[in-house]
Amino acid sequence: MGGTPPLSPLAPANFPELPVINGVRFATIEAGVRYQGRQDVMLAELAPGSAVAGVFTQSATRSAAVLDCQSKISGHSNQGAAILVNSGNANAFTGRNGAEAVQAITNAVAKTLNLPEARVFTSSTGVIGESLPHDRIRNKLADLSGALSEGAIDQAAQAIMTTDTFPKGSSATVEVDGASVQIAGIAKGSGMIAPDMATMLVYIFTDAKVETSVLQSMVSALNDTTFNCITVDSDTSTSDTLLAAATGASGVEITENSVGFMEALRRVMLDLAHQVVRDGEGATKFVEIAVTGATSDADAKTHAMAIANSPLIKTAVAGEDPNWGRVVMAIGKSGAPADRDTLSISFGDISVARNGWVDPDYNEDEAAAYMKGQNLQIRVDLGLGGGKAKVWTCDLTHGYIEINADYRS
Amino acid sequence: MGGTPPLSPLAPANFPELPVINGVRFATIEAGVRYQGRQDVMLAELAPGSAVAGVFTQSATRSAAVLDCQSKISGHSNQGAAILVNSGNANAFTGRNGAEAVQAITNAVAKTLNLPEARVFTSSTGVIGESLPHDRIRNKLADLSGALSEGAIDQAAQAIMTTDTFPKGSSATVEVDGASVQIAGIAKGSGMIAPDMATMLVYIFTDAKVETSVLQSMVSALNDTTFNCITVDSDTSTSDTLLAAATGASGVEITENSVGFMEALRRVMLDLAHQVVRDGEGATKFVEIAVTGATSDADAKTHAMAIANSPLIKTAVAGEDPNWGRVVMAIGKSGAPADRDTLSISFGDISVARNGWVDPDYNEDEAAAYMKGQNLQIRVDLGLGGGKAKVWTCDLTHGYIEINADYRS
Repeated sequence: MGGTPPLSPLAPANFPELPVINGVRFATIEAGVRYQGRQDVMLAELAPGSAVAGVFTQSATRSAAVLDCQSKISGHSNQGAAILVNSGNANAFTGRNGAEAVQAITNAVAKTLNLPEARVFTSSTGVIGESLPHDRIRNKLADLSGALSEGAIDQAAQAIMTTDTFPKGSSATVEVDGASVQIAGIAKGSGMIAPDMATMLVYIFTDAKVETSVLQSMVSALNDTTFNCITVDSDTSTSDTLLAAATGASGVEITENSVGFMEALRRVMLDLAHQVVRDGEGATKFVEIAVTGATSDADAKTHAMAIANSPLIKTAVAGEDPNWGRVVMAIGKSGAPADRDTLSISFGDISVARNGWVDPDYNEDEAAAYMKGQNLQIRVDLGLGGGKAKVWTCDLTHGYIEINADYRS
Repeated sequence: MGGTPPLSPLAPANFPELPVINGVRFATIEAGVRYQGRQDVMLAELAPGSAVAGVFTQSATRSAAVLDCQSKISGHSNQGAAILVNSGNANAFTGRNGAEAVQAITNAVAKTLNLPEARVFTSSTGVIGESLPHDRIRNKLADLSGALSEGAIDQAAQAIMTTDTFPKGSSATVEVDGASVQIAGIAKGSGMIAPDMATMLVYIFTDAKVETSVLQSMVSALNDTTFNCITVDSDTSTSDTLLAAATGASGVEITENSVGFMEALRRVMLDLAHQVVRDGEGATKFVEIAVTGATSDADAKTHAMAIANSPLIKTAVAGEDPNWGRVVMAIGKSGAPADRDTLSISFGDISVARNGWVDPDYNEDEAAAYMKGQNLQIRVDLGLGGGKAKVWTCDLTHGYIEINADYRS
């Protein structure tokens, strides 16, 4: 596996201090699913009455755990719920064995924690095409159950990592009708070493009291402008999973009109999404693509994603080259409406092109200096309408090739 | 520009011997459009009565020359036609100036060769966003006209290169009703150095007698399974152009039912398309992706292109890693129908996965040995229907990053 990859230069200075979410307890353990000498399984137990919502990969070859979660996500119970995650093995493309492994684990967790099996959610991340040794996980359930504690979310963020170079966490506190509600989330994603496949896993917890349907519609809506607006290399995982759980322990009721809560949830989701990009394979630059003036928001996102996924743009960013011609190219190929003669492009606040040609005041040296920064913005105005979108990506460097080609498993 | 890139390891041993196509004369010249010390303009003169057909980039930001060609392509004249191509400057994203430059050139060529302006086609390839110094080209037209000769197609293949590492040519001879028809073609594409943008240009000539509408429907149909089935990095040029010209000098009439001619034309187009991939930036492996068993041919192509454009698969090929899990991932994300449990994958003749799991006879060492070859095949059978497609690509290597990020202009 070529050893531990170096810490991403875009990593935050430290893991954030996350608040305790009343109604959730965490435990982690070393089960030896694949990795040795590190914790690789995490269990989260949710108090009776907790609501659980989720969004999942759209892949046609999604993993057994994803299929199982999807079948359970709209359910409800007053008995509580649990989330179990293992790293090291994705249990994807493992035929009938895959579903059997998920069932063996969910059944054992349900018995251990005295929960209905329909309220046990699992995720698996790591190598694909190999049978998940689910007995190694089941053998640790008694120990995991005995170790559950409210403060172990930091260790949970560590245990779900595969080749991530840093654990990812984020939180928010929001005042609702004079009472305080806490939100805390953890995520993993974007580090890969052949033959592992990236999976993005996200778990968000809150002590707010929210109905499942309201929580589901919130995370579905917010997902569109957070996790669905990031890309490292355009390759979609078989296992992407986001689960959000609301324990209700604060007693603060949240409805679909709770704008403050939704905004706090959005901030946590966006922060975690940005951290996944900042841990993108080989990344040295964090890039925001902001598209305005499109015929619709959907068209703006199509253009933004065409820019964010273009290997020519991503290599230009790596080379600190203000190559706006490649931005024109990406807009041209995206398939969404564009008119060359109303198109304007800026790098940060530097206008490089407007109305279909290079800005007469454009100074290449100034733009080249801007590109040396670590956090960059590419702005495009299409001059056609009011549609807009923002997406986030990283550059494409030798590090990406090294991680994905040079190391053999 | 970082000097001349090294010859692609996938380059053919030598430029092929191309037959003279009666009714076409070529000339090339050093006009100093951007490059110094090399020929950078080519002129092809087509005999009276020649039919011209073409296919062009679908980019919304296509260049002025492409827009001009598209407006003329369905026309006809008994006075002959001409094609003028310059390298070094793409005349793309140059506002109103772009169209004016095209008109200045086509007008001057028309006068010099005594042709209607509507029968003068031009292409430009190279840096984008800079005004084309069209006077440098117009000043050379008398010399070009005086130098026209039947045998100069080799020099034409050289003059249209930008950062290609080898010139590309192909030919075929086909017997029709006992008479011989010749087809010869040249192409450029896939070498890029920042801030140049790749353009793929293809020119095919035949002495067959073909009506414009028949020639057009043939190249449009054949383009779908040749040039539209190759990809180096998923980035679409603003200037891609294919022009096919039939002089009729052989006197051999070709109709829409001339299967032998169409097959010969297909071979030439496919050979040129493969040469473009073999000159892909940084390429060290040539990869055929063959998808069968899809719900339709279109769905098969969607899957094949998802595989061919996946950075994770392209880096795995570069690393000689038989990483079939990434093939599963690409099929899952393509958006076309797939069923994990009927899916089979082979590398060459080595079956790696079938019916949704790894083949019980799969031997990783054998597959790893296969991946060391220079010409590879990834075969996927979806087990759903009769749809099939083949596409061609190359690997993603450090060379690609070097060419597009490390060299600053």
